[in-house]
Amino acid sequence: VLAATVAELAVRGYGGLSIEAVAARAGVNKTTVYRRWNDRPTLVLDAMLEFSRQTVPVPDAGTLAGDLLALASSIASNLSSPAVVAVLRTLVAADSEPAIAEASRRYWRARFDLVAEVVERARARGEVAPGVRSDLIVEALIGPLYLRALVTGSPIDADAVRNCVDLALAAAARAHTAGS
Amino acid sequence: VLAATVAELAVRGYGGLSIEAVAARAGVNKTTVYRRWNDRPTLVLDAMLEFSRQTVPVPDAGTLAGDLLALASSIASNLSSPAVVAVLRTLVAADSEPAIAEASRRYWRARFDLVAEVVERARARGEVAPGVRSDLIVEALIGPLYLRALVTGSPIDADAVRNCVDLALAAAARAHTAGS
Repeated sequence: VLAATVAELAVRGYGGLSIEAVAARAGVNKTTVYRRWNDRPTLVLDAMLEFSRQTVPVPDAGTLAGDLLALASSIASNLSSPAVVAVLRTLVAADSEPAIAEASRRYWRARFDLVAEVVERARARGEVAPGVRSDLIVEALIGPLYLRALVTGSPIDADAVRNCVDLALAAAARAHTAGS
Repeated sequence: VLAATVAELAVRGYGGLSIEAVAARAGVNKTTVYRRWNDRPTLVLDAMLEFSRQTVPVPDAGTLAGDLLALASSIASNLSSPAVVAVLRTLVAADSEPAIAEASRRYWRARFDLVAEVVERARARGEVAPGVRSDLIVEALIGPLYLRALVTGSPIDADAVRNCVDLALAAAARAHTAGS
């Protein structure tokens, strides 16, 4: 059902998502879907979380650089898929609906919390400067990738992956403090 | 006409944009609009470029840190406006149309070229490490801000501005090279 939801989102967008079509694609009765997910935002949230768990696992390479490279590579691979980008575009557009905005906030909170494990392990190894919040490192890593995928359309190639890893490492080392 | 286009985009989205409505809002005859802009993507492109020229001027503060702070502050101010975010959301969604994707690529190429002036001046002052491309510095600056505005919904506050300036300065200094 969750895979069918992602597939339907890619083809029809959030506006065109119907629980009937998801059930048909998954080969289950629609009451089965309704019983577990009683609204579309919750179904989309669960589908996105499951998709990310499978395609962007939390790495444990032993170094922050290795973990960030693994994360950036799997995110870049997702963002190179037209179907994934189509899903993201439709969710960005649907974010003006409060229920979808709320589901999206929960999705990102859950994902940032998972990636925070990587940063906490790096912190324990002394690879993160004191006081640097894990969210900032994650934003440095994924900000430029999502910008390319959704906004500027620049290619997400090996250079882009390397550059965002460099940027996230700089954030972890807090190389500059313009504000202070 | 261009201001009316931005206003119509914010209210109706790209899908609902009509040249008649833009003309009515601008108080001009629709043939006036058609004579100058014969399709919607070109009208949207010109409207966005004019809006950015007015709201995100190219600064010249004398230091890279000062210029990046000025840019980040004006971009953050735009991204704090629900109308601007609504326009961006509708354009992200419409990017699956080739004509809009093409107009968007031209928009970003023009904007990155303008901001490159800031980086070239910094390069002449020795504030940019050799071989660092200006696009990377711009992506480090705006990636995290657009991520918050369009994707994660995290607030774009003074901290976010300071952090993206730090990140862009780190990119300029090329603090890390994970890939090499």
